[in-house]
Amino acid sequence: MVDIASRVYNHKWKIDPIVRSLIDTDFYKLLMCQSVFRNKPDTDVTFSLINRTTSIRLADLIDEGELREQLDHIRTLRLGRGESTWLRGNMFYGKRQMFRPDFMEWFENLQLPPYHLEKRDGQYELTFEGKWPEVMLWEIPALAVLMELRSRAVLNRMRRFELKVLYARAMTKLWEKVERLQKIDGLKVADFGTRRRHSFLWQDWCVQALQEGLGEAFVGTSNCLIAMNRDMEAIGTNAHELPMIYAALADSDEELRQAPYKVLADWHEEHSGNLRIILPDTYGTENFLKHAPDWLTTWTGIRIDSGDPVEGAETAIRWWQERGEDPTQKLVIFSDGLDVAKIEELHARFAGRVKVSFGWGTLLTNDFRGLVPDDALAPFSLVCKAVSANGRPTVKLSDNPNKALGPADEVARYKRVFELGPQKAMDVIV
Amino acid sequence: MVDIASRVYNHKWKIDPIVRSLIDTDFYKLLMCQSVFRNKPDTDVTFSLINRTTSIRLADLIDEGELREQLDHIRTLRLGRGESTWLRGNMFYGKRQMFRPDFMEWFENLQLPPYHLEKRDGQYELTFEGKWPEVMLWEIPALAVLMELRSRAVLNRMRRFELKVLYARAMTKLWEKVERLQKIDGLKVADFGTRRRHSFLWQDWCVQALQEGLGEAFVGTSNCLIAMNRDMEAIGTNAHELPMIYAALADSDEELRQAPYKVLADWHEEHSGNLRIILPDTYGTENFLKHAPDWLTTWTGIRIDSGDPVEGAETAIRWWQERGEDPTQKLVIFSDGLDVAKIEELHARFAGRVKVSFGWGTLLTNDFRGLVPDDALAPFSLVCKAVSANGRPTVKLSDNPNKALGPADEVARYKRVFELGPQKAMDVIV
Repeated sequence: MVDIASRVYNHKWKIDPIVRSLIDTDFYKLLMCQSVFRNKPDTDVTFSLINRTTSIRLADLIDEGELREQLDHIRTLRLGRGESTWLRGNMFYGKRQMFRPDFMEWFENLQLPPYHLEKRDGQYELTFEGKWPEVMLWEIPALAVLMELRSRAVLNRMRRFELKVLYARAMTKLWEKVERLQKIDGLKVADFGTRRRHSFLWQDWCVQALQEGLGEAFVGTSNCLIAMNRDMEAIGTNAHELPMIYAALADSDEELRQAPYKVLADWHEEHSGNLRIILPDTYGTENFLKHAPDWLTTWTGIRIDSGDPVEGAETAIRWWQERGEDPTQKLVIFSDGLDVAKIEELHARFAGRVKVSFGWGTLLTNDFRGLVPDDALAPFSLVCKAVSANGRPTVKLSDNPNKALGPADEVARYKRVFELGPQKAMDVIV
Repeated sequence: MVDIASRVYNHKWKIDPIVRSLIDTDFYKLLMCQSVFRNKPDTDVTFSLINRTTSIRLADLIDEGELREQLDHIRTLRLGRGESTWLRGNMFYGKRQMFRPDFMEWFENLQLPPYHLEKRDGQYELTFEGKWPEVMLWEIPALAVLMELRSRAVLNRMRRFELKVLYARAMTKLWEKVERLQKIDGLKVADFGTRRRHSFLWQDWCVQALQEGLGEAFVGTSNCLIAMNRDMEAIGTNAHELPMIYAALADSDEELRQAPYKVLADWHEEHSGNLRIILPDTYGTENFLKHAPDWLTTWTGIRIDSGDPVEGAETAIRWWQERGEDPTQKLVIFSDGLDVAKIEELHARFAGRVKVSFGWGTLLTNDFRGLVPDDALAPFSLVCKAVSANGRPTVKLSDNPNKALGPADEVARYKRVFELGPQKAMDVIV
């Protein structure tokens, strides 16, 4: 029996909105936003979309009008009362009232700032300018919108049962991964797949499938909305935009050298326990650890997000040992380009030597590889990054030169300041 | 948004009925029923359930109370007004008013007769006794109920996403078959899978998937309810119960010898065109064709339902040639234990030499092989057959001795009368 009111209501929408909530975003964005709101609220920043997979001509695939409608819809969103209550009242990482009243009040009144959109060479130039705490909240929804519009462009050509079977195959594919992961003793894995998901509904499905299939081994999702709806842990700590913007704001080489530590000093004041996770690779992990202040060695763990993950983890283990820490008590979170085989390999190598955890992203929530002709639904490498702060360009070096960002002269200066040696280039799949 | 009224309504059902309509049955049952209603309305018959796969202990798997509830529910069913209208008004095989007013009036007032149910040795003894036109309509719903209760017994142990993925895998499996069949030029295939389907909803899904995936190559379904709901052709002609009961009623060996032809003579009077399909194997195809009257050679085609299908079709082709008919104008319908590989093989061999068509049954609507542990959802060989008529036992010989039925002495007599030579035994999978 069709519920007539529901059907009429659904057809009243002029569009099918991709992002329907301001908390359909990564939890660490909100943690960082609160930190920025306190420490650097007036910094002017620009975030910009970057499609590293230039063979995918997004502006040919996605209609500009539809893209604008989706982005405009996001600008109509406000934090909902229930969402606000959840953020204010929930316990995150064992802590109540993680979000301060002044931040929550600001967030409750927030509208995302305007965007700038142009087409160039088959790609979209999409930028966001304004105060850092506002602009930074565009990153995740902007990526999710582009990823899902691209999915829709491909799905639009398919018939009803083709679609049924496509999702049947994707579900089967995911469940085969679940069945392999079930065999890993002591596994800890979280969903980090919001930004490059196939679609919101698909991410929601994947998360629920992992919840049933992996039980305790599935520790939560980075997506706040899904965490709230499905009554799970929201997961995440901090990201590259903090050191990138702190670094851009530095007035001298010496300040630049200290910027990554200054970020974590501010973080140290605010957070404890599992939120104290070092992200060391922004300007090269090795140099970062070498010059790190001793208080950083007491932090809970490290997140490995670029370069060879085995090398990254081994470097961290050596560093803890050299500084007199017991690596078996430290947490290593792998979060770069993971899929099941890589998770199996890393777990086998590091379980017992450190506490191991995995932030599984794009190949959890968007692995439609091989399921349609021409692999037209394969994930690709789309990012939305801070490109300038108070008029100065930002730079990211990373442990993989293929992930580096910034103008050439600035990259050269950063390499000199951070004593970056030769790096191994690795393919960036997602 | 939950439709509260729908939810409450759904929960009001004491059971989830498996068969919800008297036309959730094979079309040929209704065609035969009308013929029986005219020619042998007062014959007393007994139909009985026979599980040829004795390793599956149905009485251990299926609760007797639940089975009774389902069978009792079927006895509450009456032909619906829309169903009656569809049967009365629809065009079947190009003919309007296929069902006569007197038959329709009888059918509109029909309640299925009582059943007898006992447990013995881990199996159910389920029998139906009464007038032939009534009792015969129990066969298909009784089988569908037992098959689906067995499915439910296995599915009851599974969790939500396990179920999701089970159906995702089954859908994928079916679609892979569709993709193979799409490559066969000139294919004609129909759904014959009602009786041993996994479930009603699954059959309905399969039929719709074939409709989209195969287009014109999918010529219809034997299930009247699905044909009505999905606006397709209802497919089917006649079955073994006609010669079996005509034979049981024969008073002499000579009458017995003529019984299979008498069935088709009655049929010949009533039907033309694509409904004139010979089912020759009840007492051995070779002898049947050898002694067949000449008017049978003018019939549209033949259905091969047991034995080696290649041999069966070659025998038919030789027979037509010997009788001066052009085999390329004749229809051969294969309907025994088909799956994609067999369809491909038979089509490759016979397309062009005859008109080829396939009645695809259990491995269309119930192929869950390999999808759960211990293959607990694999289809099995359950039948419901006429076992006596006016107190005399029925006999079926078939072109495969593993499909033979009846008491040993009667089987011996039939073999003698029908001059049955040595037969090749073949596994009966479904």
